[in-house]
Amino acid sequence: MEPQINNNVRKLETSLIRQVLMKSREIEDSINLTIGEPDITTPEIIIKKSADYMLNNQLNYAPLGGVAELREEVAKFYNTKYNSNYDADNVMVSVGSTEGLSTALKGILNPGDEVIVIKPAYPLYEALITLYGAKAVYIDTKNSSYKVEASMIEGAITPKTKAVILNYPSNPCGTLLSEDEVKKISQVISDNNVYLISDEIYSEVVFTGNKFYSPASVDNIRSKVIVINGFSKSHSMTGWRVGYIIAEKNLRDHLVKVSQYTISTPSTLSQYGAIIALRDARDVGESVKVYEKRALYIYEALTKLGFDVVKPEGTFYVLADYSKISKKESMNFVLDLLENTGVATVPGAAFGTEGCIRVSCTQKIEILADAVKRLENYILLNKNL
Amino acid sequence: MEPQINNNVRKLETSLIRQVLMKSREIEDSINLTIGEPDITTPEIIIKKSADYMLNNQLNYAPLGGVAELREEVAKFYNTKYNSNYDADNVMVSVGSTEGLSTALKGILNPGDEVIVIKPAYPLYEALITLYGAKAVYIDTKNSSYKVEASMIEGAITPKTKAVILNYPSNPCGTLLSEDEVKKISQVISDNNVYLISDEIYSEVVFTGNKFYSPASVDNIRSKVIVINGFSKSHSMTGWRVGYIIAEKNLRDHLVKVSQYTISTPSTLSQYGAIIALRDARDVGESVKVYEKRALYIYEALTKLGFDVVKPEGTFYVLADYSKISKKESMNFVLDLLENTGVATVPGAAFGTEGCIRVSCTQKIEILADAVKRLENYILLNKNL
Repeated sequence: MEPQINNNVRKLETSLIRQVLMKSREIEDSINLTIGEPDITTPEIIIKKSADYMLNNQLNYAPLGGVAELREEVAKFYNTKYNSNYDADNVMVSVGSTEGLSTALKGILNPGDEVIVIKPAYPLYEALITLYGAKAVYIDTKNSSYKVEASMIEGAITPKTKAVILNYPSNPCGTLLSEDEVKKISQVISDNNVYLISDEIYSEVVFTGNKFYSPASVDNIRSKVIVINGFSKSHSMTGWRVGYIIAEKNLRDHLVKVSQYTISTPSTLSQYGAIIALRDARDVGESVKVYEKRALYIYEALTKLGFDVVKPEGTFYVLADYSKISKKESMNFVLDLLENTGVATVPGAAFGTEGCIRVSCTQKIEILADAVKRLENYILLNKNL
Repeated sequence: MEPQINNNVRKLETSLIRQVLMKSREIEDSINLTIGEPDITTPEIIIKKSADYMLNNQLNYAPLGGVAELREEVAKFYNTKYNSNYDADNVMVSVGSTEGLSTALKGILNPGDEVIVIKPAYPLYEALITLYGAKAVYIDTKNSSYKVEASMIEGAITPKTKAVILNYPSNPCGTLLSEDEVKKISQVISDNNVYLISDEIYSEVVFTGNKFYSPASVDNIRSKVIVINGFSKSHSMTGWRVGYIIAEKNLRDHLVKVSQYTISTPSTLSQYGAIIALRDARDVGESVKVYEKRALYIYEALTKLGFDVVKPEGTFYVLADYSKISKKESMNFVLDLLENTGVATVPGAAFGTEGCIRVSCTQKIEILADAVKRLENYILLNKNL
């Protein structure tokens, strides 16, 4: 007999995204539209300079909280882009945005706390909230065009609420909030004793005619805002594992302690690569154009096939409601689709919502076209049955 | 007013090691004997092959739990060296041994659990145990030659004990346990419903005439043993942040979930570098000889100066009792030493023990000789006062 493990860990499950991904690998000629892994490669200057750096420098431990030059570059990046007034001491470097989120939530949550999460939601939020013994309180945005409204947040706050998590540009919805709505939400945060965690990992992937407005832009709530961001999506640096937290200095220092005892510091080389990303490869407009073209293609194609599709304003993702096509539960629909067409997508259930799927546009347009063709046949066949 | 942070995070303090290190940076011509950062560089083949790999491969997300080839190499390494019977499914790759420890403890501890820690102890253990709401129960080894005995562990186990942490070769003591003692301890583990966490980060740094015997060698407790190890110390890869956990498969799968939600995966490039370390740079004997020469030099020199010194059997560290020289508390002694000589060491208090200092032998022998000279003058001066 072995000793018992942690009770909250026992509750955690392997994500549905991974389950579909593993299934798809068993199917010949499958098309993987599940994972958020950019197919565009890392900008060459980052790779070349980083390889050169490692050949000429011993990779020692980085300072706790991250390399100073990177923290300075991040503060500058936000101040320029979002008119904030951060400095290097507001920034903590993390092992991708995942460690940023886990460290931020670990740092602030006590067991029994509530965290407001906007649904459909990236599954990591609930997993971490559960792991730390707190409770996720959901706001469903299905009936508000997949955009949360300030009044909905206000209505969900209780004395137990410790934080609200926003994730715009939204994974899985691809939606953005207007500047006006962010300002209204900021007022709610200002009026209540809660943190606002803004997961901005897709902030650079915003399509033509849209603009991402960060809560970091709002002066009077800056001490309550915890920004989570990183380089995985903007610079196709997923395997580098480098991201950051921006927060009020005192809170940031507490979070550095959590991070120190959890991972020590992120890879020194990856931190160097991130400096190059901000100094020499800041403009990622070309990649975004590619993602936009694909996302709009999928949006139009699936709409034509009878899906109710949320028009993407950013990210790599398209959320498509299939309820006019099938009454199946989303996991069954996804598995049926996968078995019959080889096209792997993510069930809405992975994001806490039913009747829809998420399509990841991280494949070339020819492959997306092949997937659309297969979906068309599948739907025709289903109608004939 | 800002919302409250986590109660356990509030209790955490910046480590005394870091405090001394920061102070030493303010002093001109100081000699830093505080940190466990090898001055020997990473084996060239690891750097060259890794630079080449990154120039020729997109660094995508690694699989959850780590790259399969690395997990296979780790299992082989342990099976060959310690006669265990692990396979790749027993291994989880971590962001250095720090994430290995934090994930292992997070995975098994519930609030209120007790963990037996051997004193003097690496401060990370207590920080993590506190962070997870559990309690560290200490066994002091000052009167048993800085080596824990099975009977001491047996006497400390209560119904609340969830795990025992061993850390041999010991940081800060530099001591090892005999095969006989490890077998006796294994019997205690076998008789009780507890895990044995074996932090073996210094397993490769063992001096002539000594042998490290891992609890992973003992067949009948293997399902309760959680090995923590990594490449920072053996291969001077501190900034790469790559290590591993080895555990019973079912437990390992639970720990992968914790790690997935904490950091996603370690750097893909660092995992590649670790594969090269095990395949092409397994023999680190030359570096160990250098560390041994230095450690024995410090051992002899400090003994001559009137310290009571623990004879090092491995690691980079020498633990020296100064109670015949000064009655100061260890933090005051270290600060006085630093201010008067510029030599920075770590106070025993950092490891939960008084009347001694830890000297890190990660500097060239000429620098160590300079430090000894300064200590000699300091002691002479102190005697004359």
